[in-house]
Amino acid sequence: MTNIKEDAGRVEWRIRVDEKDGSSDQVLETEPGPANGFCRVFKCLVANKFSMRLLRFLKKAWHLGVDDPRKVFHCLKVGIALSVVSLFYYMRPLYDGVGGTAMWAVMTVVVVFENTVGATISKSLNRAIGTCLAGLLAVGIHWVASKSGNKLEPVIVEGSLFLLASAATFSRFVPAVKKKFDYGTVIFILTFSLVSVSGYRVEKLFDMAKQRLSTIIIGTSLCILTSMLVSPIWAGQELHCLIIKNMEKLATSLECCVAEYFDDGQKTTSAPVQNLQAYKCVLNSKATEESMANFAAWEPAHGSFNFQHPWKQYLKIAAAMRDCAYCIEALNSCISNKKQASKSMKKHLSDICLKVNSSSGSILRELAINLETFKKTSKMDISIEEMNNSVQEVKNYLKSLPGLVLTPTTSETKSSETAIMEPLLTTNTIPLVEVIPLVTFTSLLIEIPTRVEAIVDAVEELANKAKFKPAPDDKPKQNEQNNKTVSEQLNDEKTMKTLQSV
Amino acid sequence: MTNIKEDAGRVEWRIRVDEKDGSSDQVLETEPGPANGFCRVFKCLVANKFSMRLLRFLKKAWHLGVDDPRKVFHCLKVGIALSVVSLFYYMRPLYDGVGGTAMWAVMTVVVVFENTVGATISKSLNRAIGTCLAGLLAVGIHWVASKSGNKLEPVIVEGSLFLLASAATFSRFVPAVKKKFDYGTVIFILTFSLVSVSGYRVEKLFDMAKQRLSTIIIGTSLCILTSMLVSPIWAGQELHCLIIKNMEKLATSLECCVAEYFDDGQKTTSAPVQNLQAYKCVLNSKATEESMANFAAWEPAHGSFNFQHPWKQYLKIAAAMRDCAYCIEALNSCISNKKQASKSMKKHLSDICLKVNSSSGSILRELAINLETFKKTSKMDISIEEMNNSVQEVKNYLKSLPGLVLTPTTSETKSSETAIMEPLLTTNTIPLVEVIPLVTFTSLLIEIPTRVEAIVDAVEELANKAKFKPAPDDKPKQNEQNNKTVSEQLNDEKTMKTLQSV
Repeated sequence: MTNIKEDAGRVEWRIRVDEKDGSSDQVLETEPGPANGFCRVFKCLVANKFSMRLLRFLKKAWHLGVDDPRKVFHCLKVGIALSVVSLFYYMRPLYDGVGGTAMWAVMTVVVVFENTVGATISKSLNRAIGTCLAGLLAVGIHWVASKSGNKLEPVIVEGSLFLLASAATFSRFVPAVKKKFDYGTVIFILTFSLVSVSGYRVEKLFDMAKQRLSTIIIGTSLCILTSMLVSPIWAGQELHCLIIKNMEKLATSLECCVAEYFDDGQKTTSAPVQNLQAYKCVLNSKATEESMANFAAWEPAHGSFNFQHPWKQYLKIAAAMRDCAYCIEALNSCISNKKQASKSMKKHLSDICLKVNSSSGSILRELAINLETFKKTSKMDISIEEMNNSVQEVKNYLKSLPGLVLTPTTSETKSSETAIMEPLLTTNTIPLVEVIPLVTFTSLLIEIPTRVEAIVDAVEELANKAKFKPAPDDKPKQNEQNNKTVSEQLNDEKTMKTLQSV
Repeated sequence: MTNIKEDAGRVEWRIRVDEKDGSSDQVLETEPGPANGFCRVFKCLVANKFSMRLLRFLKKAWHLGVDDPRKVFHCLKVGIALSVVSLFYYMRPLYDGVGGTAMWAVMTVVVVFENTVGATISKSLNRAIGTCLAGLLAVGIHWVASKSGNKLEPVIVEGSLFLLASAATFSRFVPAVKKKFDYGTVIFILTFSLVSVSGYRVEKLFDMAKQRLSTIIIGTSLCILTSMLVSPIWAGQELHCLIIKNMEKLATSLECCVAEYFDDGQKTTSAPVQNLQAYKCVLNSKATEESMANFAAWEPAHGSFNFQHPWKQYLKIAAAMRDCAYCIEALNSCISNKKQASKSMKKHLSDICLKVNSSSGSILRELAINLETFKKTSKMDISIEEMNNSVQEVKNYLKSLPGLVLTPTTSETKSSETAIMEPLLTTNTIPLVEVIPLVTFTSLLIEIPTRVEAIVDAVEELANKAKFKPAPDDKPKQNEQNNKTVSEQLNDEKTMKTLQSV
């Protein structure tokens, strides 16, 4: 705390520094005095605010680096690649070879080097191919123009520039081009305009095109090599991990949500909000997943991923997961009504609902483990059977409840209703209003297994496409299971299905 | 159909052209013969496939252009801007002024010109500021390096390049920088490395920096002017329209969904799938909205939007709309169970549920109109009241239903249950299993008005922040309404709330 009163300068101020978050909150009470004092205060204020902001920024950046050190590595990699490329300027022999266009190598490194290998390769190839195509076309048009006389030449060059630039810009709106070749199209326009326009001045067009291409190849290969060899970040790997993490978050969210609903306040600790709302990550990661899958398609084989790994299948899994997350969203919105639900019915439902919940959750976790280890397990069928059994239990319980007795007058006169309800209430009656929230919650909950099964199907399709191996521990069990239950299992499934359809 | 048999060349082929979609499906049965024939077939195949693909691509592009002619205009604008900038090369006086670096102007136009004004301005400013900062810093460091002797010079230049490039690359990971200054950071690294590295060779550093800056300013101002003056596409306007369209889609989806659920098959036409699933647009447009809002913040005042229009508020409206869409998703998943619902109860519920539905839908449509006309109407309060009244009706109906009679043995022995249920079934009883789907649907439906109210609140906040004017037709009515119901309305609202909380 600072309290300063300057009677001479007639400046009075108080500075309150909130020690909790370090932000200062200043109250200034200035009386008319020399501008000097005011200036000092103002400067102090600005400096303080600026340094606070800077500090906060640095703090955030520090946390970013600590959370994911690979980001720091990426920055060092960019620094290394740029330093290496700038050596072209310093070492005479190299400099003489590539000439003044070494600038293009520097530029390529800066523009092309991205966080993931896939993005770097995608941009590199786009840049190289765009440059080649545009260079060839520009040289061709230049040749045609040079043959058609001095007056027609600028018309042809300008006209072709206008037409090709417009057409290429338009092609960027076509989704297929936008998705994979957006950058290449920009580079196409860029190179075409540079070459075709400067062709009017520079006579050695072929030399220039050759030089530019060679420097771009140097730049791109340097980028690709650095990004692949020095602690690489693979877009495919990132996508794979993101899907696994999101699957675990879905499981956590689901488990917490149902536990929270049936928690009657006896437990001392309730689920933290971030666990309850973990499913929101699944809802919000669509754009990231799509760009990752897009970049992953450019990557060579790495780790456990082949060159033609079915990346698009991950998007299908993600879509199935989002479907499940929508359902959890609806479940979550039921939590606010949990106190209106009938306690006696809740008690009865609690155990079987938690069973559905835990079996769905454990399937999601199992799937995540399978994905993580690139294995298929036969246990999944058993788990799904368990889940469906527990769903059936809930359905049976709901079926076992007595029906509603409706008199024809129900919705017409209220007095007659209450007259009918009076005698019922004297026995062990639960008002329907108390039943509704529970029934809603339960029927949303038994929708979850259907959606979990869709996720299982999507993951199994991935496992088939990517040829995951069966888990080693499972093999004997699987056979045993197969021997025992080839017909039994079928029967079980059939009865299960008929039971469900009833 | 073509059937050709060449006995001489021993080539036999059949071509089946599927006339429906125009795709050809060729079955080749080649017998050993001269390679010539095979080649011809192969060429024909490739040419056919390629031309088919090209045709399909052109068709798609044509439709894109017809659907949104502004896209075509954008392409022409890019063509115009590039042609104008390339004049620098052709006109002597200009050429002498800006020299060989006129290339930068061309490059700036290609890279900076984006579809919307906001994106163009954002990229232009990023490019200009990034270039300035990096240029100043590079010149400063070059000056320091040149003072420190021949041996130390490359060390200082290389070291500063490595450090600054790494630091700037890292700053791109900080979300705040990523969102607004990502491109500027790239340009900063690019300019810094070009200037600092070429400074070792080129003696006239200041001249180069000045030239580059002037060409960039020429390029960016050309881009900004063209994008703003020739049929501009404003990101803000686009965001505004997107939100309005999505709101209408939400209304359509909601109305179709409820109508579909209560449709007992008597109507000949059911809602088309794209109407039912229109809400998915709302779920999927998050990324677009965010980038639009980001770009809109860079735009000057245009149309009915001020410079400091509260663009972030649109994201809040969109979030509220997504919350509502999640609920519609859950409702939609109930449609598959609609046949299991009790018909007699459905009849009773149908009218009041459709009332809730139409009132929520009309509020959404009214909001869309208000947004479109930049007006606030006082009618909204009345509509909300109506909606809440209809929700209350549904709640009252549900309350009026008799309760469930539970005997303590319910969940223990099935035989006793059936014994209890037998006598009940003889009277007018609805089994609970038939009630559950309806009750679930209804309680999801009465969740919708809460979410619609959240949208109304978000839109009202926008109307206040952006100072929307009251609708001219409403003014007298509003006063009347105010005079009449200042206290009444409050009372109504209070009773409504207490009724709801019961």
